Amino acid sequence: MAHIQVPEGVPGIRSLVMFRPESGQYLYDLAQVLLRGESPLSEAERELIATYVSSRNECAFCTNSHAAAARYLFKDKKQVVDVVLNHYQAAPISDKLKALLNIAGKVQINGKEVLPEDIALARQHGATDRDIHDTVLIAATFSMFNRYVDGLASFTPTDPQAYDEMGVRMGEKGYVLPAKP
Amino acid sequence: MAHIQVPEGVPGIRSLVMFRPESGQYLYDLAQVLLRGESPLSEAERELIATYVSSRNECAFCTNSHAAAARYLFKDKKQVVDVVLNHYQAAPISDKLKALLNIAGKVQINGKEVLPEDIALARQHGATDRDIHDTVLIAATFSMFNRYVDGLASFTPTDPQAYDEMGVRMGEKGYVLPAKP
Repeated sequence: MAHIQVPEGVPGIRSLVMFRPESGQYLYDLAQVLLRGESPLSEAERELIATYVSSRNECAFCTNSHAAAARYLFKDKKQVVDVVLNHYQAAPISDKLKALLNIAGKVQINGKEVLPEDIALARQHGATDRDIHDTVLIAATFSMFNRYVDGLASFTPTDPQAYDEMGVRMGEKGYVLPAKP
Repeated sequence: MAHIQVPEGVPGIRSLVMFRPESGQYLYDLAQVLLRGESPLSEAERELIATYVSSRNECAFCTNSHAAAARYLFKDKKQVVDVVLNHYQAAPISDKLKALLNIAGKVQINGKEVLPEDIALARQHGATDRDIHDTVLIAATFSMFNRYVDGLASFTPTDPQAYDEMGVRMGEKGYVLPAKP
C-alpha cells in the first residue's frame, strides 16, 4: 500500500500525479521533452538509458515500464534491452551508446562520479555535447522518478502483461497526461 | 570547466538551462511549484529540505545557493539552516520537520529506504499526506538537480557573496527564468 492516500489500483507515478497534478504536469512535460523531444539520441536509446538507471536504482515499476517501452521502440532488436540490463558491455549496441551508459551509471551514483575521462571516452566514439547533456539529464531525471515512485511506495503491478500494455502506450503516445474525466 | 560547452561564467543550473531551454523551462517550473507553490510546508522549510538533500549529495552549488535562500526566508532565525546541515536532530525546529528531514534523507539514498515506521513517526508529529508527498518529491527533485549540476561539472562559484545575492533573488523572485535578451 502506498504511504499516502492515492487512487487505488493506479500504478506508479500516475497515481502520484493524480494526487498532486500541479507538480505532475511538469513531470510529464519533462519526460516528454527528454524522451520524445528532438535529440541526437533515438527514442529507443533514451528509453534504454532511463531503464538502465531505473534498474540500478532497483525501481521495479520504472524499470519494467520503460523496459517495455524500449522493447517496443527497438522493434525487431528488442532483445537488446535485456542484454543491456544484464551486462551492457556485452550488448550489440554502438561503442558510443556504451560510453553514454557508463556516464548514466555514474550519474546514478552521484554527479561527481562523472570524470573527464568518461566524457573523453564518449567523445572518442562520436558523442556530441547534446548526446552527453541528454544522457546526464535523463539519468538525473530517472534518479528523481525512481525516488518519487518508491519513496511513496506507489502501486507496482506484478503482472508482466500490464507492463507490455504500458510499453505500447508509452511507445506510441509518449508522456501525455490522460484527459480529465 | 564544465564537461560541455555552456555559457562561460554562468553558475550552476542556469548555464545548463541556457544550453537546453526546452528541458530547462520545465525544471524551473517544477522548482517553482514545489518550493513556492501552495503547500502546508513554509517556503523556508521547503528550501531547508532542498538544502539538506543537496548537502548529503555534496553538491556545493545547490547546497550553497539553497542554504542562502533558506537563510533569507528564515529571516531572524536564519542560524537554523547551519545547525540543520550540521546535525538536524539538535536544531531548534519542530519534531514534525525533523521527521520529514529523516524521510528526505532516506529518499536521498534510495526511495525504498523510506519505511512505514518513518511515515508513522512523521504522522505522530502531525504530518499530513501533503507534507509527506511534498517532502518526498522535493528530496527526489533535488536528487535530480544535484546530479544534473555535478554530472556536467557546471560552474560553481567559490565567493560566498555570490550565494548571498542568489539567496536574496531566489527568496524574493523564486524560480523564474530570466527574460530572453
